[in-house]
Amino acid sequence: MEYFADVPKIEYEGPESKNPLAFKHYNPDEQIEGQSMRDLLRFSVCYWHTFRGTGSDPFGAATLQRPWDDGSNSVENAIKRVDVAFEFFEKLQAPYYCFHDKDVSPDGETLKEANENFDRIADKLQEAQERTGVKLLWGTANLFSHPRFMHGAATSPNADVFAYAAAQVKKAMEVTHRLGGENYVFWGGREGYMNLFNTDMKRELDHLARFMHMAVEHAQKIGFKGQFLFEPKPKEPTKHQYDFDAAACLNFLRAYDLLDHVKLNIETNHATLAGHTMMHELVYSSIQGSLGSIDANTGDLLLGWDTDQFPTDIYLTTQCMLAILDQGGLAPGGVNFDAKVRRESFEPIDLFYAHVGGMDAFARGAKIAAQIRKDGVLSDFVAKRYASYNEGIGAQIEAGSVSFSDLEAYMLEKGDSAPNLSGRQEWIENVINEYL
Amino acid sequence: MEYFADVPKIEYEGPESKNPLAFKHYNPDEQIEGQSMRDLLRFSVCYWHTFRGTGSDPFGAATLQRPWDDGSNSVENAIKRVDVAFEFFEKLQAPYYCFHDKDVSPDGETLKEANENFDRIADKLQEAQERTGVKLLWGTANLFSHPRFMHGAATSPNADVFAYAAAQVKKAMEVTHRLGGENYVFWGGREGYMNLFNTDMKRELDHLARFMHMAVEHAQKIGFKGQFLFEPKPKEPTKHQYDFDAAACLNFLRAYDLLDHVKLNIETNHATLAGHTMMHELVYSSIQGSLGSIDANTGDLLLGWDTDQFPTDIYLTTQCMLAILDQGGLAPGGVNFDAKVRRESFEPIDLFYAHVGGMDAFARGAKIAAQIRKDGVLSDFVAKRYASYNEGIGAQIEAGSVSFSDLEAYMLEKGDSAPNLSGRQEWIENVINEYL
Amino acid sequence: MEYFADVPKIEYEGPESKNPLAFKHYNPDEQIEGQSMRDLLRFSVCYWHTFRGTGSDPFGAATLQRPWDDGSNSVENAIKRVDVAFEFFEKLQAPYYCFHDKDVSPDGETLKEANENFDRIADKLQEAQERTGVKLLWGTANLFSHPRFMHGAATSPNADVFAYAAAQVKKAMEVTHRLGGENYVFWGGREGYMNLFNTDMKRELDHLARFMHMAVEHAQKIGFKGQFLFEPKPKEPTKHQYDFDAAACLNFLRAYDLLDHVKLNIETNHATLAGHTMMHELVYSSIQGSLGSIDANTGDLLLGWDTDQFPTDIYLTTQCMLAILDQGGLAPGGVNFDAKVRRESFEPIDLFYAHVGGMDAFARGAKIAAQIRKDGVLSDFVAKRYASYNEGIGAQIEAGSVSFSDLEAYMLEKGDSAPNLSGRQEWIENVINEYL
Amino acid sequence: MEYFADVPKIEYEGPESKNPLAFKHYNPDEQIEGQSMRDLLRFSVCYWHTFRGTGSDPFGAATLQRPWDDGSNSVENAIKRVDVAFEFFEKLQAPYYCFHDKDVSPDGETLKEANENFDRIADKLQEAQERTGVKLLWGTANLFSHPRFMHGAATSPNADVFAYAAAQVKKAMEVTHRLGGENYVFWGGREGYMNLFNTDMKRELDHLARFMHMAVEHAQKIGFKGQFLFEPKPKEPTKHQYDFDAAACLNFLRAYDLLDHVKLNIETNHATLAGHTMMHELVYSSIQGSLGSIDANTGDLLLGWDTDQFPTDIYLTTQCMLAILDQGGLAPGGVNFDAKVRRESFEPIDLFYAHVGGMDAFARGAKIAAQIRKDGVLSDFVAKRYASYNEGIGAQIEAGSVSFSDLEAYMLEKGDSAPNLSGRQEWIENVINEYL
Repeated sequence: MEYFADVPKIEYEGPESKNPLAFKHYNPDEQIEGQSMRDLLRFSVCYWHTFRGTGSDPFGAATLQRPWDDGSNSVENAIKRVDVAFEFFEKLQAPYYCFHDKDVSPDGETLKEANENFDRIADKLQEAQERTGVKLLWGTANLFSHPRFMHGAATSPNADVFAYAAAQVKKAMEVTHRLGGENYVFWGGREGYMNLFNTDMKRELDHLARFMHMAVEHAQKIGFKGQFLFEPKPKEPTKHQYDFDAAACLNFLRAYDLLDHVKLNIETNHATLAGHTMMHELVYSSIQGSLGSIDANTGDLLLGWDTDQFPTDIYLTTQCMLAILDQGGLAPGGVNFDAKVRRESFEPIDLFYAHVGGMDAFARGAKIAAQIRKDGVLSDFVAKRYASYNEGIGAQIEAGSVSFSDLEAYMLEKGDSAPNLSGRQEWIENVINEYL
Repeated sequence: MEYFADVPKIEYEGPESKNPLAFKHYNPDEQIEGQSMRDLLRFSVCYWHTFRGTGSDPFGAATLQRPWDDGSNSVENAIKRVDVAFEFFEKLQAPYYCFHDKDVSPDGETLKEANENFDRIADKLQEAQERTGVKLLWGTANLFSHPRFMHGAATSPNADVFAYAAAQVKKAMEVTHRLGGENYVFWGGREGYMNLFNTDMKRELDHLARFMHMAVEHAQKIGFKGQFLFEPKPKEPTKHQYDFDAAACLNFLRAYDLLDHVKLNIETNHATLAGHTMMHELVYSSIQGSLGSIDANTGDLLLGWDTDQFPTDIYLTTQCMLAILDQGGLAPGGVNFDAKVRRESFEPIDLFYAHVGGMDAFARGAKIAAQIRKDGVLSDFVAKRYASYNEGIGAQIEAGSVSFSDLEAYMLEKGDSAPNLSGRQEWIENVINEYL
Repeated sequence: MEYFADVPKIEYEGPESKNPLAFKHYNPDEQIEGQSMRDLLRFSVCYWHTFRGTGSDPFGAATLQRPWDDGSNSVENAIKRVDVAFEFFEKLQAPYYCFHDKDVSPDGETLKEANENFDRIADKLQEAQERTGVKLLWGTANLFSHPRFMHGAATSPNADVFAYAAAQVKKAMEVTHRLGGENYVFWGGREGYMNLFNTDMKRELDHLARFMHMAVEHAQKIGFKGQFLFEPKPKEPTKHQYDFDAAACLNFLRAYDLLDHVKLNIETNHATLAGHTMMHELVYSSIQGSLGSIDANTGDLLLGWDTDQFPTDIYLTTQCMLAILDQGGLAPGGVNFDAKVRRESFEPIDLFYAHVGGMDAFARGAKIAAQIRKDGVLSDFVAKRYASYNEGIGAQIEAGSVSFSDLEAYMLEKGDSAPNLSGRQEWIENVINEYL
Repeated sequence: MEYFADVPKIEYEGPESKNPLAFKHYNPDEQIEGQSMRDLLRFSVCYWHTFRGTGSDPFGAATLQRPWDDGSNSVENAIKRVDVAFEFFEKLQAPYYCFHDKDVSPDGETLKEANENFDRIADKLQEAQERTGVKLLWGTANLFSHPRFMHGAATSPNADVFAYAAAQVKKAMEVTHRLGGENYVFWGGREGYMNLFNTDMKRELDHLARFMHMAVEHAQKIGFKGQFLFEPKPKEPTKHQYDFDAAACLNFLRAYDLLDHVKLNIETNHATLAGHTMMHELVYSSIQGSLGSIDANTGDLLLGWDTDQFPTDIYLTTQCMLAILDQGGLAPGGVNFDAKVRRESFEPIDLFYAHVGGMDAFARGAKIAAQIRKDGVLSDFVAKRYASYNEGIGAQIEAGSVSFSDLEAYMLEKGDSAPNLSGRQEWIENVINEYL
């Protein structure tokens, strides 16, 4: 059965097309810096927003029309959703998808029942993957929606909740492994606190580290070679998350000897809620060798919650792609649309408009970034700015061959430093505009 | 000569006093958890705001009346300011003060001239310290006001600026050492970026680490045993600082093998600009063994810049003191008032009102915190909350003796986790109010 | 049947009490500026958070234990909830409550069915009010939760939605009138926009004004003499609300000739989300004769959404009560706890802790504010600050008897203005601390 | 003498040009909706940032190289600056400029001396205007930099300060009138408060209104027919400004019967600091007939202060131009670059890069907006969205011919409202991207 019968497969038609159901920029086989767009961008659709989102918000009920979904929590309904989802992935030419365990599979009264449901759904997903060629970018476990996780999962003060979470992640890792998932993500939905007065932060962080080490050990045990990813978010639902931003995550990973095992999955709206640009978080992670994957969305900088809007700002996508191209791509990570249609965009067709727009925006950003890199105007400027470190006293500083005393002697002799160069921010902004 | 002739020495008169020039709560010899308030709080007056602040802001000229100051940059004027400052410290019963090199000492046309000025001022400071018993909590170097530092100091793209900064810090460390300073602070005024497009973040961070290692090496060379402190601030004056918050600082210190050499100096208004409560930053640093000292001020959470107001909120000071008492105090760090009078509070007497209020607020917070700790209502609640980790599966988790497989088996057997306890946030807030 | 069998009626026990189920400050018959606390504070419990809240959030399911509630949408369940609610109000000594139509009464398949349900519930509420003496502070209609209101109600682009909303408000006003409600509130849940590109702001504002005029006319028709209240909120759930803050509401009311008919209901967390202190919004409304009532809660200034926490900050409640006492009270408005327990505070007893804490915090604020007013230290300072307008050129300015030319002549003669007085902010903050 | 000898007159070279000193989009004579770009955009250079900015910030000294300026406060230096400025305006093809009195003219020891200086400078400005054809978009008075204005000007508690401000505005209006200024602006630099406890808000607002009425009366007296403009800004330098946003300004103007005399000057960075998009403030002002002029800059939404950066975001300029074209233009207002180069962009040439970029960004936005309007895709969508108000019950609502009772009867009959249309936000964002 075809669920989106009135929607054709989305094809590339070029920038002049006015067809809202065609790509104007995403041309899967087009080459960018030696890779096809498909391989560079590795687009992924998220199961939660796209197939489990309802349009409810804290002030209103579900609005989204999803005629294929009977609203039940049955395995049958879940299986039908898989068919819908893979039809969507195929029509969209999305090579990847992602899920939490509870997105794809109904929960159970007991852990055993939940695991059995998950196995049945995994069969179906495997079949659909094989049939369509769509692959699993990453899996994860939902450790925040069930009331048992109200105080956190690995950081819950209730040891049983830690144990339940461990069992759940074990299973989600195994299903991810079985389905060929290329990564496994930790997003600590409630791994933080609502109130510091009732919280033992040290003990909670120790537990979280213990949990991640157990995951690393279990991966070795089952032969899962995928990449582990830790996803920063500063707050919401909790008042404060331990995975606040890339710096907090990396500090944690370093402190607990996890840095070699875990990279970061950076999300735009999480970056901005933490007071950083997305570009900052990408560059910061990348230069530490820890940029693993991205959640591609955008927020509203005048709103203080995670709006998870589809990314359409070309400045943003250009910045993302500059950082990604700088490290040669994201594989085995990818560009996952952790984004949802507005609850007022309640028709199924809005799902297509949204993803087409996001994919085109990233494709456009990729082309612009590649052109900027090729022309070298900005990189030449940066190189020139730091040229004083390439020789003389600068080179000695970088080589570690001078001390404070040496530098004092040098400067007492010289009297004052050589003049600075203009930072040229306005010129840089104009240059970037020329590429749009 | 007496500069504050109409102001008596500030004495403790108790909570019922209506005298605005008396302490209602700060009673230096009163004991709190086995220490005198003087030794616990280690109050420090900052030289910059209190003796070099002018009341100018980006939209207006200097307003503050400082009749002793002739406005010149002469060494004579600087020397007179030392007398005024130490009279102020003594009348206020402040045991410590802090400075940047350029607060106390006039800059010079050349590094040599600047250093010579600094030596003359250091003579005067030493004499004043010896005369009054007031001590130096910490020294630092101003690496952000001079135009040469427009692009940063240790992170400047101009190697000569790095060299100049190195020479300046060398001297500031030596003067701090000579004056018995108990700490040396790095606040990276412009160690960040205005624009990521013209910035090589990796190279800048490498340079910053190199700089701090040179400082550590120089301390060893000259025998300076004081504590190094790194001070987080997310932004302002730059768009983004590398020392964004405690997490960013600690990640940097870990990455570059500096963690054993450097602790943190946490400031309230910097914490909140980074999206954290002060209490978060204190607890987070403390549990990692890295809380060294604090800058005691407050911001305005509805404003987006560093207002550096005097701390008067008793909730805030109670939270600070809970965190500080938890680690047994701050020594060799202290409570430094990095705070300034509003530019509309332009009379010298306002400096007294401001410091008296801040000292009383911290003293009151200290007493409340000690009482909360003594009664144990909150700590008992927290202990009970985590009790499940003291035995059984929880203890095994903490001991590292169970794996994901073990925990799955445990939970498959049990079916679901034991119930949670209420977080009781509202009750906690009521309890704290009972102590005010 | 008694639903809170283990909770006694909450009584005043004084500040020394350690009983978490007693008032330490709220003493209903105690006099403050000639009114009893009961009559001054006019505390109200909100039906929505307290009896319909579930603890769900955008990332998690319901957590709150409400054993009396069968979770159904039946009239019988709704009737039982009324009994629970009134038992709660009585035990809490809350003289008032508030509701939206859909809080107390099940919605229907048709408007007719919804209205019939509402009539049955109104019978029950009337009986409960008469039995207990608890009164209705205000009623309102929920025009934001049902999917039909996704684009707004009175500002929906769908005229039928306007009509439905009109019918719903008509009924809610009539039930409010029947139950002796002293006010009727408009909170425009989705009266704003998600996206300006699809919005005709002019037409929407015209419609909103038309809607409120119809309400005013209907009140006259049915003899409802209660106060209309308009409640500002800047955003959430929409990107931007038309009732952004007090200024936006008052500008709207003035522009559409509604100012004489409608006052404001000010909420703390809405004020702060709009970038104002609660005190600002209260004073600003009050000096324009438009402060009608308040929603007493608090937000978290480091979070960007409406957390609706119970107000426990004594500085906040003191500021509120200063503004309220300045205008002689709030009647016919009141202090409504538009606040909810955290989802981690899931036991029924947490509802009592929360309300007791909020009531005590406001009672404490009222006593402090009254003492500050009685002592006159702050008001004397303010009076002195503006004294230059009481005579001479200042009095002429206020009288409107001088022009720019007159003032230029005056100042050309005088050369420069007389000196300013210090603003003394630090001293003021210390003075307030003395009253805590 | 030529001050920018190495800079040619900036000419239009078209989008393909790589010349950083040429316009790629601003083509003064090109027609947009029946007006030349020159007449539509009415670009203005601000004197303060461009010729008086120094690059100092709260943490650092002046950096900007302005070789023509001797740094003195002499009339001679001020006269030379006029020559530099007009050379700049001409090379840039800017048809307008703006000033505060104290930007162009040295202050004096007395009001008399200040006025005499201003007259001498006015002679020079008049001569330069006549020589070059560059015109004055607006004048204003600086009522915030001098210490006398620390507590405000028209809202100062010191009546003498009100009088001084009145004299200063009188003179600034007269000079503006003499120079053919087309507008006069009120930006209330410190017309707000630092602390509500020492403030009588009612009295201050009454004074502000009195001040503006005096200005209106003085304009009539001297025959000044220019437009008065009131400029919203929420905060900075004060904690809270009375002119917070468009709504606060319009509420004030309505309350004090000034709406017919004063329109608004809207600035992007002020809009965003108040929690609004620029587009919101423009549309909101425009539909109330009060959009008079704009200050064209941009802020950094992750920073909490007024960064006054040059506008280069094409999305932003497109939104601005859509709102401006909707009301047929801005005349007698214009597009004033209230923007400054970064302090790290310290060379004079950076002033050219900055203005060229801003002008091109607005020109590009104007072309895109005109094309969007011509194609009608968005306006058709909006028209269709509200079509239900064009007939039937919707038309009756708009006509005011139906009451709540009528609408209830209508909806009881109908049972429920007609279905909604999708808001199509994602499609809209894609459509806009097609125009970039």
